[in-house]
Amino acid sequence: MSYSNRLEKRGSNFASAWLRLGYFVLIFPLTVSAQTLADRLGYPPGTKLIIVHADDLGETHAVNAPVIKTLEAGSVNSASLMVPCPWFPEIADYAKSHPDADFGLHLTVTSERVYYRWGPVAPADKVPSLVDKNGYFHHDWENNQHINPKEVEIELRAQIERALVMGIRPTHLDSHQYRLIMNGKELFEVMVRVAHEYKLPVFVTRDWFADHPYLQQSLGPDDIVLDHTVTIGPEVPAEKWAEFYVSALRDLKPGVTEFVIHPGFDDQELRAATRERPTWGSAWRQRDLDFFTSNQFREILAQLNIKLITWRELAKMTERK
Amino acid sequence: MSYSNRLEKRGSNFASAWLRLGYFVLIFPLTVSAQTLADRLGYPPGTKLIIVHADDLGETHAVNAPVIKTLEAGSVNSASLMVPCPWFPEIADYAKSHPDADFGLHLTVTSERVYYRWGPVAPADKVPSLVDKNGYFHHDWENNQHINPKEVEIELRAQIERALVMGIRPTHLDSHQYRLIMNGKELFEVMVRVAHEYKLPVFVTRDWFADHPYLQQSLGPDDIVLDHTVTIGPEVPAEKWAEFYVSALRDLKPGVTEFVIHPGFDDQELRAATRERPTWGSAWRQRDLDFFTSNQFREILAQLNIKLITWRELAKMTERK
Repeated sequence: MSYSNRLEKRGSNFASAWLRLGYFVLIFPLTVSAQTLADRLGYPPGTKLIIVHADDLGETHAVNAPVIKTLEAGSVNSASLMVPCPWFPEIADYAKSHPDADFGLHLTVTSERVYYRWGPVAPADKVPSLVDKNGYFHHDWENNQHINPKEVEIELRAQIERALVMGIRPTHLDSHQYRLIMNGKELFEVMVRVAHEYKLPVFVTRDWFADHPYLQQSLGPDDIVLDHTVTIGPEVPAEKWAEFYVSALRDLKPGVTEFVIHPGFDDQELRAATRERPTWGSAWRQRDLDFFTSNQFREILAQLNIKLITWRELAKMTERK
Repeated sequence: MSYSNRLEKRGSNFASAWLRLGYFVLIFPLTVSAQTLADRLGYPPGTKLIIVHADDLGETHAVNAPVIKTLEAGSVNSASLMVPCPWFPEIADYAKSHPDADFGLHLTVTSERVYYRWGPVAPADKVPSLVDKNGYFHHDWENNQHINPKEVEIELRAQIERALVMGIRPTHLDSHQYRLIMNGKELFEVMVRVAHEYKLPVFVTRDWFADHPYLQQSLGPDDIVLDHTVTIGPEVPAEKWAEFYVSALRDLKPGVTEFVIHPGFDDQELRAATRERPTWGSAWRQRDLDFFTSNQFREILAQLNIKLITWRELAKMTERK
């Protein structure tokens, strides 16, 4: 079964579990810990903080354009950029002229669409296990796919170096499709090693530790670990989109939670780029954009006393400790 | 002065010359030859044939989508594809399932836009003279730019091989921004050598021989040489677009003429991708699309008894000779 199918299958298993439990929020407090990241940062007990984080900038103009607007309107407060993608120069130009924006790098080692594709930043012959016969990143990783961690390291460094040369000062690193998080200790250790060298935090939450114990083992005592993450899945029908997020906000646990969202315009470019499947497609991204720019979202944050926080703020507060 | 500026400057010099001469058509019968390509192919004397050729497929979806429609409607009958570009897989998929379509490869060694960019198909460390410090093809070639012809050859082979692996059977080769045509004997000889090996004709016209004598010198007796080419330039104001093409068709000389056109949708994607300058921008491309899908264009072809011909037909007829 392909990685994306597995993700979707896992999503639908989760869905039935939620329905049974009466929950709609992806929160798994599997490691029992009285102290949240918010507590450790000195917030009063019970404080609820969220990062509203847009993924996939640089992939298409139809993602860059609306996310820039939401960042300026304050409804999204963090995002990460895909260096190998063709629209990266547009968002790099914006990032360079907006040095206070909270931009991380969305480290990318796959090219998951069919009609619109990209390949490595490193020379293709230096990272042969990462590319298909046409020279693009693999569309997917099969179960027996051999991915050479040394080549992943070469590629991650190439992506970070291109971002630095183009004037970006990233605030964090995360991983497109969670490829570097969910595929074993070796790849995660590469990501952490590179992150430590560049002194950047990596997006990890305690929610994932039970399923992937190597995450906790590979991190040091100074690494930032978020408490929770919320992301919508394919099992949520279009008409329940707002309801999912409202429930997630109402049921939010204390600590720092990253909402991983995928805003974009449902326009000709994004429809064409994502037309082979609806998951994380253009209508999906328009629904995310609509909710996170709605008055409903702003009002519920105020009502529930949920505060926004960025990766830049987290890093600064952690340094002071 | 940059290459594109020089092209535009040259365009405006041409414009004043045309105004003086009362001509609007880019026809320079500088080598006096009684026999046209049409004559050599056995057409009756005075026959006028045109290839209506769309450039830049693969660059954006906003170019692919309308050109596919115009090919199917028959108003454009040939096109060429940019292998290094992100939307190449979309048009490659179409080409594979439409093996009779007249698709060439638009060999590409520059990345001329600012916010939307691409790089080589060959590993970047094999073609260092072709890439900028960020790893993209150069935005432009300065006058003193060192371009290594051996690296150009590596890159051209990589582009052709990717196209073949992805199921395309190209009918001809041409050169994005005429970089391989107008920049001296060495680069043109690389293009011709590669074309001969893959048994593909190269887009060259007799119009260019006076300014660039090496073109004629580098070709063999069996190479196809078109008689003329028509392409619109920045000196034509938007409201004179149809008038330019109508004049070009009315003043058409006997022989085979390629109309090099740039159809595209003036939509959000193409506006963003081309926003730093209007030349060959989204409004320009929409005007080309509008004229070549108009009844006016069809009617004038019938009225003037101008026939369409493709590169595939030319190659077949030449083989028979």
